[in-house]
Amino acid sequence: MLNQSSPSNDLQTGSVQLLPAVSLDNVIFGFHHNELTVLLLQAKSNQGWMLPGGFIGKEEDLDSAAVRILTARTGLTNVFLQQFYVFGSAKRNRKEHLGDVLQTLGIELTAESWFMQRFITIGYYALVNYDQVIPHPDETSLACSWQAVRELPPMLFDHEHIIAKALHALRLQLNYQPVGYTLLPKEFPLKSLQTVYETILGRKLDRSNFNRKLLSYGILEKKEKHYSGASHKAPFLYSFREDMYFKALENGLEKDF
Amino acid sequence: MLNQSSPSNDLQTGSVQLLPAVSLDNVIFGFHHNELTVLLLQAKSNQGWMLPGGFIGKEEDLDSAAVRILTARTGLTNVFLQQFYVFGSAKRNRKEHLGDVLQTLGIELTAESWFMQRFITIGYYALVNYDQVIPHPDETSLACSWQAVRELPPMLFDHEHIIAKALHALRLQLNYQPVGYTLLPKEFPLKSLQTVYETILGRKLDRSNFNRKLLSYGILEKKEKHYSGASHKAPFLYSFREDMYFKALENGLEKDF
Repeated sequence: MLNQSSPSNDLQTGSVQLLPAVSLDNVIFGFHHNELTVLLLQAKSNQGWMLPGGFIGKEEDLDSAAVRILTARTGLTNVFLQQFYVFGSAKRNRKEHLGDVLQTLGIELTAESWFMQRFITIGYYALVNYDQVIPHPDETSLACSWQAVRELPPMLFDHEHIIAKALHALRLQLNYQPVGYTLLPKEFPLKSLQTVYETILGRKLDRSNFNRKLLSYGILEKKEKHYSGASHKAPFLYSFREDMYFKALENGLEKDF
Repeated sequence: MLNQSSPSNDLQTGSVQLLPAVSLDNVIFGFHHNELTVLLLQAKSNQGWMLPGGFIGKEEDLDSAAVRILTARTGLTNVFLQQFYVFGSAKRNRKEHLGDVLQTLGIELTAESWFMQRFITIGYYALVNYDQVIPHPDETSLACSWQAVRELPPMLFDHEHIIAKALHALRLQLNYQPVGYTLLPKEFPLKSLQTVYETILGRKLDRSNFNRKLLSYGILEKKEKHYSGASHKAPFLYSFREDMYFKALENGLEKDF
């Protein structure tokens, strides 16, 4: 949560214009080689891994801060970011927790430190196109790279818990909002979309049930079949109908009560 | 958002141990006479209406603060409260907005006021049993009472927007989580549950589709029919199967992908 472009000295003296006691963490999911991945930073100080996050300017919209932090680490703009949970446990203000944070950043802990306050952190998640991301480490990190969600490296702070909660929110979201537009290429076989769902849910799905269900939402459009060489058995490709997709994102998928 | 039991003077001098820049607002829904209602406070100063809310202690869990504020206004404990959104627009720190707040509370606005900072507010919603609530006004309010969601009185600040967003979250929730356990009596005809859904969705539902769908979730249990006098045509009563209900609340309703 600490990949802030502002100089640490300013944070210590409290001269920067940041909202006190509130941070923001982005859980950025991508899809690669049939694997759900998450973009993480590795701390220079102790090689632990953490989420790309930061703070909110006193005159900055919360959502704008989330986009700014995402753009700084990925180069992407125009990404669908969604709030999913506020982590507000009182123990997030304990000295031992902040001690870790500051050690990571190389800041000395004093009673006057800006960091000597309790922080709540607001979790956002994003589903992005893996191939379009250019990972950018910040000044406190050795590396910024994709890691498989099912096999996370050693995580700092409570960030493993934050990722688990984001994945849980994403699983619930599959019940009422469409997923896949930003994870898949423009045209894709239904099998790829099924793999996205299976990866997020962590279980196999029946192919014909899945196809019937997904096609019933009216968010998919069948494309012309392109025969190329020996691929006469290639599956039909589909694309998302943008208007219907974004309507369903806002209002939920049609429900047949 | 300002129904804090701590004395206002303490807030002004900054001597109270509250998390800066963060408030919390509870949207408490009840169901009465086939109408969705929300519990509101009416300000003494200008008779405008607002949500029951407050601040978070520096050593208090966020969720505990939400429960404390709900209990203070309703007398209820053990209520299902759910975070639904963080309202973080930068304009929530504008003086004119705070001016309204302070006028309402009878606090003079000075540059040193604790209130002279930007606030983000964390929205929670609760679905409670109307009949079990004993509304408690606080020291700044004339009244604490239920108001119909479809016909709100003149609201202060951005609280009308917060209620609209809570209702939207609740509508999406109907797609994947059960609703009704805390709104209805222990035993109820399916027609009452259908009315709850219709009220939240704002549209009529087909009775047989609704019954088939709701019964398919496995969260309802049919009770013995009690014949009493002329009510030989009385409908079957149902109750929620608590174990299945809370499992579905946590993991979502079964989805047939």
